[in-house]
Amino acid sequence: MTEFIPVGTRYVDLPSPFAMKRGGELRGARIAYETWGELNAARDNAVLIVTGLSPDAHAAANDANPEAGWWEPMVGPGKPIDSDRWFVICVNSLGSCKGSTGPASIDPATGDLYRLSFPDLSVEDGANAAAHVVRSLGIERLACVIGNSMGGMTALALLRAHPGIARAHINISGAARALPFSIAIRSLQREAIRLDPEWNHGNYTDEHYPESGMRMARKLGVITYRSALEWDGRFGRVRLESDRPDEEPFGLEFQVESYLEGHARRFVRRYDPNCYLYLSRSMDWFDLGEYAGGDVMAGLAAIRVEKALAIGVHTDILFPLQQQQEIADGLRAGGADAHFLPLESPQGHDAFLVDIARFGPAVRDFLDSL
Amino acid sequence: MTEFIPVGTRYVDLPSPFAMKRGGELRGARIAYETWGELNAARDNAVLIVTGLSPDAHAAANDANPEAGWWEPMVGPGKPIDSDRWFVICVNSLGSCKGSTGPASIDPATGDLYRLSFPDLSVEDGANAAAHVVRSLGIERLACVIGNSMGGMTALALLRAHPGIARAHINISGAARALPFSIAIRSLQREAIRLDPEWNHGNYTDEHYPESGMRMARKLGVITYRSALEWDGRFGRVRLESDRPDEEPFGLEFQVESYLEGHARRFVRRYDPNCYLYLSRSMDWFDLGEYAGGDVMAGLAAIRVEKALAIGVHTDILFPLQQQQEIADGLRAGGADAHFLPLESPQGHDAFLVDIARFGPAVRDFLDSL
Repeated sequence: MTEFIPVGTRYVDLPSPFAMKRGGELRGARIAYETWGELNAARDNAVLIVTGLSPDAHAAANDANPEAGWWEPMVGPGKPIDSDRWFVICVNSLGSCKGSTGPASIDPATGDLYRLSFPDLSVEDGANAAAHVVRSLGIERLACVIGNSMGGMTALALLRAHPGIARAHINISGAARALPFSIAIRSLQREAIRLDPEWNHGNYTDEHYPESGMRMARKLGVITYRSALEWDGRFGRVRLESDRPDEEPFGLEFQVESYLEGHARRFVRRYDPNCYLYLSRSMDWFDLGEYAGGDVMAGLAAIRVEKALAIGVHTDILFPLQQQQEIADGLRAGGADAHFLPLESPQGHDAFLVDIARFGPAVRDFLDSL
Repeated sequence: MTEFIPVGTRYVDLPSPFAMKRGGELRGARIAYETWGELNAARDNAVLIVTGLSPDAHAAANDANPEAGWWEPMVGPGKPIDSDRWFVICVNSLGSCKGSTGPASIDPATGDLYRLSFPDLSVEDGANAAAHVVRSLGIERLACVIGNSMGGMTALALLRAHPGIARAHINISGAARALPFSIAIRSLQREAIRLDPEWNHGNYTDEHYPESGMRMARKLGVITYRSALEWDGRFGRVRLESDRPDEEPFGLEFQVESYLEGHARRFVRRYDPNCYLYLSRSMDWFDLGEYAGGDVMAGLAAIRVEKALAIGVHTDILFPLQQQQEIADGLRAGGADAHFLPLESPQGHDAFLVDIARFGPAVRDFLDSL
C-alpha cells in the first residue's frame, strides 16, 4: 500500500513504547502529517485537522506536493482554512494505511505485517497520537482543532484527554458516541470483509485479496455517505448508456449502480482491509459518556474549550444532526461559547467534502472570529 | 422450500400460457392465496391484500390454519380489516417461493427448477396474476385493494391495468416508482447474493447454499426497514450479555448486531435466493411513469379508483414519505377522493407490521367509510 502514500508526507515518531487504550503497545510507530503555512513566532496560529476513516494527510496542495488534496477547496492561501494566517496541520490517523502506523505496517518485533496482531485500536489512541504530533511541532496550544466525521470523535477525545490543547474546536458531521444505526451499518461493512474467503482472517495477499468484501463495504459506505434527496435529482431512474448491456444476470442497469461501482473500484485496492476493520470498529467503541458514568452530555461538559462550532447536515443518516446538536449543547454546558449550525445540504454525511458553498463560509467565519 | 409454505394455503391456476410483461411466458403456473370471512351475495365485499417481498399468503390465522400470520393484529373478526364484514384475500406474489410459481418452482417443460431460466419478472406480472385470482373467485370488483411496500407497487399496477377492478385503494408505505436510493440498496443486496460463490449463478443446492450472501442481503434489508430513531431507544449502546464474548475477530459485541444476526438467521434458509433476486429487481424496474411518457404523476392520474388512502411513515428511508404523498396527489389528480396520511411511527418502513396502534385505526376508519 506504500504506493498510495502521497509524496511529501512527513512523519513524527511516536514515543516507543506507545501504550494503547485497550491494552498492548506499539514500538517504533509513527504518524504521517502534512502542513500548510507557517507557524508564527508566538506559536499560537496552529490549526489541526483530524480526518474521517479513509483520507490521508494530504488535505490540499502544498509546496511538498502540488497535487490536489481531499479537502482542496478548504485549505490553502486565502481559502476558508487560510494558510496565510494559520499554520495548518493534517494528520493521518493512527491505524490507517496512508503513512501512519497501522495493521498494514511492519511489526518491528517480527519483521512481518501486523495484520490482526495489531493491538485493539480506539479513537482515543488516534487522539493521543495526534497530540504527540502537535507537541513535536513545538506547539503548546492549538488555535483550533477541526474534526470531520470520525475526526469529530478524534477531536473530542483529544480535547478531553489533553485539556488546554486547543482554544477552539470545529466539529463537522461528528459525534460524541456511536449510535446503533451507524454501528449496524459499520458492523455489516466489516462482516462483508470478514465473510470474503479471501480475507482469510487478515492473511490476504495481493493475489488473494478480499476484493468482493471491500467492494460491498465501500458501496454500503457510499450509500450512507450521501442522501436519497441528492440522488433523486442526480440520477433519478436514468439507465446506463451502453450498446452492450451488462450480460451478467442481475448486472448493472441504472446510473446509480454504476456510480457505486466506480466508487468501489477506486477504493478496494487503495485501502487496506485490516486497517478498515480496525478504524471502523474504533468508531463503534467511541463513547464520551464512558468518562462520565455513561452520561454523554456530562462527558461533553467536562471538556474545556473556549469556543466551539458543531456543524451538521439534515440529510446525514450516518452521523445525524441531533449528534452535532448534542455536541454543541454539551460543550456549552461545560462553559464553552458553543454554537450549533445545521446546514441544508442535500449531500448527506459527505457534504463537507463537496458543499463548499455552505461549509466554506461557516468554517471561515468561525476561524475569523478567533 | 415447500416446507415453508403455510398449511391450508389454496391455489388458483393461472391461464397457461401466462404471458410475462418483458417477454416469455409461464405454463402451468399457479398463485397461492388464503381468505378470511365470506363473500356476500352481492359479491361486493372483497378486500385484496398484496404483500411486500417476503411474506406468504398467511396474513393471519383462519379456519385452514390457526397459526398467527404476518399481519395477525390487522386481519380477522373485529380487527381493522374485519372479516366479519369483508371477504379478505391475501395472495402470495408471483415469483415468490411461498406457494406461488417462481424461480424455485419446477419448470414443467424440463422437470427441473426454473432457477435463472425463469422469465424476467415485473411488478406488473404479479398484478396480472393477482387479478386472475380475483376473477377466479367470482369477484368482478373488489371493495378495496390494500398493498404494503412492494405490494403498494403491485396494487397500483393492478389498478392501472385492470380499470374498475377495485372501488377503493389503501397504499401503505408504497411507491409509484423506484428511486435511486432504494435501487442502490436493493442492487447491493442482490450483489451480496451474486458475489457469494455458493450462489453459483443460481445453481446452489441445500449443501452448497449462498448463506453468506443471503445473510448480508437480509441484514441490509433489516437496517433499511427500521429506523435510527427506533434503535436509539431500543438498543442504545447496550452490549451483548455473555460470559463468553464472541471469539471471532471483529465478532458481535452490541445488541443491535445480535438483533440483525437473529433476523438473518431466521431468513436465509426460509427464502429462496433466486426468488429474492427476481422480486428485488422487479421493484427497481417499476415506474408508473412508463405508461405516461415518463411522467409519474400522469401515470397515477390515469388510474381510475373512487377513493384512496396513501399512508406513510416519516422515518421510512426505503419508501420515503414523499412517495406516498405523490401517490395521493396523483390519484386525486385522476379524480379519486384520495388522502395522504403521514404517521409519526418511529419504526420506519416496517411500521405497518408493528405499529398497529397507528395503522389499525387508519385502515379501519378508511374501510368503515366505504
